[in-house]
Amino acid sequence: MNVLVVNAGSSSLKYQLLNTDTREVFAKGNCERIGIDGSFIGHEENGVKDKLEVELPDHRTAIKHVFDILKTVDAPIEGIGHRVVQGGWYFPESAVVTDETLGWVREVAPLAPLHNYAEADVIEICREMFPELGNVIVPDTAFHYNMPEKAWRYAIPRDVVDKYHVRKYGAHGTSHRFIWRTVHEMMGDKTHKLVSCHLGSGASLCAIEDGKCMDTTMGLTPLDGLIMGTRCGTVDPATVFYLNRVAGMSIDDIDTMMNKQSGLLAVSAKSSDSRDIEEGANSGDANCQMAMDMFYYRTSQLFAEMAASMEGVDTMAFTAGIGENSVTMRAGVAERLKWMGVEIDPELNKIRSDEPRVISTPDSAITVLVVPTNEELMIALDVEELLGK
Amino acid sequence: MNVLVVNAGSSSLKYQLLNTDTREVFAKGNCERIGIDGSFIGHEENGVKDKLEVELPDHRTAIKHVFDILKTVDAPIEGIGHRVVQGGWYFPESAVVTDETLGWVREVAPLAPLHNYAEADVIEICREMFPELGNVIVPDTAFHYNMPEKAWRYAIPRDVVDKYHVRKYGAHGTSHRFIWRTVHEMMGDKTHKLVSCHLGSGASLCAIEDGKCMDTTMGLTPLDGLIMGTRCGTVDPATVFYLNRVAGMSIDDIDTMMNKQSGLLAVSAKSSDSRDIEEGANSGDANCQMAMDMFYYRTSQLFAEMAASMEGVDTMAFTAGIGENSVTMRAGVAERLKWMGVEIDPELNKIRSDEPRVISTPDSAITVLVVPTNEELMIALDVEELLGK
Repeated sequence: MNVLVVNAGSSSLKYQLLNTDTREVFAKGNCERIGIDGSFIGHEENGVKDKLEVELPDHRTAIKHVFDILKTVDAPIEGIGHRVVQGGWYFPESAVVTDETLGWVREVAPLAPLHNYAEADVIEICREMFPELGNVIVPDTAFHYNMPEKAWRYAIPRDVVDKYHVRKYGAHGTSHRFIWRTVHEMMGDKTHKLVSCHLGSGASLCAIEDGKCMDTTMGLTPLDGLIMGTRCGTVDPATVFYLNRVAGMSIDDIDTMMNKQSGLLAVSAKSSDSRDIEEGANSGDANCQMAMDMFYYRTSQLFAEMAASMEGVDTMAFTAGIGENSVTMRAGVAERLKWMGVEIDPELNKIRSDEPRVISTPDSAITVLVVPTNEELMIALDVEELLGK
Repeated sequence: MNVLVVNAGSSSLKYQLLNTDTREVFAKGNCERIGIDGSFIGHEENGVKDKLEVELPDHRTAIKHVFDILKTVDAPIEGIGHRVVQGGWYFPESAVVTDETLGWVREVAPLAPLHNYAEADVIEICREMFPELGNVIVPDTAFHYNMPEKAWRYAIPRDVVDKYHVRKYGAHGTSHRFIWRTVHEMMGDKTHKLVSCHLGSGASLCAIEDGKCMDTTMGLTPLDGLIMGTRCGTVDPATVFYLNRVAGMSIDDIDTMMNKQSGLLAVSAKSSDSRDIEEGANSGDANCQMAMDMFYYRTSQLFAEMAASMEGVDTMAFTAGIGENSVTMRAGVAERLKWMGVEIDPELNKIRSDEPRVISTPDSAITVLVVPTNEELMIALDVEELLGK
């Protein structure tokens, strides 16, 4: 089945057209700076990259351009899969788009206003333009929906929890689900308790026991948990009260600060990109070194927390930008987990590859893998499952 | 040395007069409902309890009453130790009261406004009334002051951290220090990496390696970390943004909710007192059972986190109201830590005693103790060390 995967952000729209059987990617690209001056589409087809400078005042215009571009591709679209950031209290799994399910995406949008409204708009446009094609909603939270209540419940008054749907939703669920699937294919019955480590500019860990999410480090929103590129991760929630009262910062100021100006960027005082920070640390920049030390430290602490949620761990998988590519940062995290039985082979860790692979020693109590994630493929497979003949 | 230990809360003032050598407690009590109708002093001397109904419009009046009551005790006060909730960025250890150190208690008060101002007032009154007596400040944060930077630093912009002194301060430091001291006396060189579990209506864990604090679960304020009697503990800080925007709650509303109406009280929908909740769970109340399950779950997760901060753990100590007294809740937490090598002896766990004691089996990889805490003694010992001849 040829599936178009659409991933609409607040000012971007990524797309990928692929075949679920052969896994061939026919074309992919990204509409950037939607609604902002200097918008363009970066398109890639047959290994050739193109930059199209076009005006993209809104997501409607962007998706129309995408369909125009894809007309020339010799692979007719047979279904569309939409990544949705927040499925809220409605989506325990992916779902075919109907008036009802589309309504849900908008209803839960206050939990992720920058993303869900744009995503719902894009879904609506796709239905209008191609009424003959099926659309599927793939929420990034669905995999976490059925985690145990003791993991998702916040200890705040039950009427507030119920009325405003406050709970741990998590994120990166599609990636964590793909990682479990791949690890399980490779390891079979050797893996029961996996901590999936999605470490990118956004980062989360997920405790997965026999395919089920037991807990994850992101919370009501993707701000929580690990230290990320520009997000602070877990801090005392009273920090918000304190900065509001003592520093006179508004809620919007604090939100922006914690989501956009914090994390590795704030600690390094240099960059949100781990590659710049590694480089800085290598040239003796103490702030960059502290950013890396904190990243290792918090990742190892939350790894232990995820293990506790399963009362044990037998497998660890690194994925996403940092997890797939940074030899140094994988080694740094693993080093702090030696006490739990993690032992990676430095030579295996150094190998660069697009294939999933084991990097731990044969004696390591916890098997450690690097698994390139593929959220687009996971989404396409969901589309096939729900719409395929 | 006869030391008066004073612990001033926002509307209370606890006191205890004891001797550091013999550890005899001559008298103790609590001024309650200061500034509120129906104030009284509960006083205990020679095992006899008394309730004195007196008007206590402010802390000044309360401390004067305390000195009046203590005049009849045949143990002249030789020094006064003051528990201070928040030592902020000034107190790596206890300090003799001077104009300068008293000024610091007020300067850092925005971090704990309900406590520090009252405590500073009480210190001032004691100096005025008894200029011949030495006073010592014993901040509850001092033990955590020198934890490693990667543990105390928040990943928010450095200018905000520096200007507003935002960091992990922790709390219960005097208790955790006492626990280390007692465990070390009992275990000697067998204990290097201790997780001290102060579980009361307020609750925190502390990772202590060879006597030094390596990390703790409370943060900028005592709201963070474990689920407590009425405090929610760690939640996504974005929960504050969300409730402000979507539920229209003010910062003060959310602060009050998270500090006073959350935790075990909110989950059980019954009580903040773990004894009531145990009773509820025993009679089949599902909300009470959930409160206990969440308490075990989060305590085990954060125990693992503390272990990660030391890259291992050899000893665990339970203390404070729940930790010292609840056989059930100790067993519940220990049960979830079997995978880490915690094995308690159910018979030893059942014994009720005021003495520190081991409750793990001989084969347990982690030695587990129950250690009654004694913050008053720890404070008195600090007074003796700083003022004793």
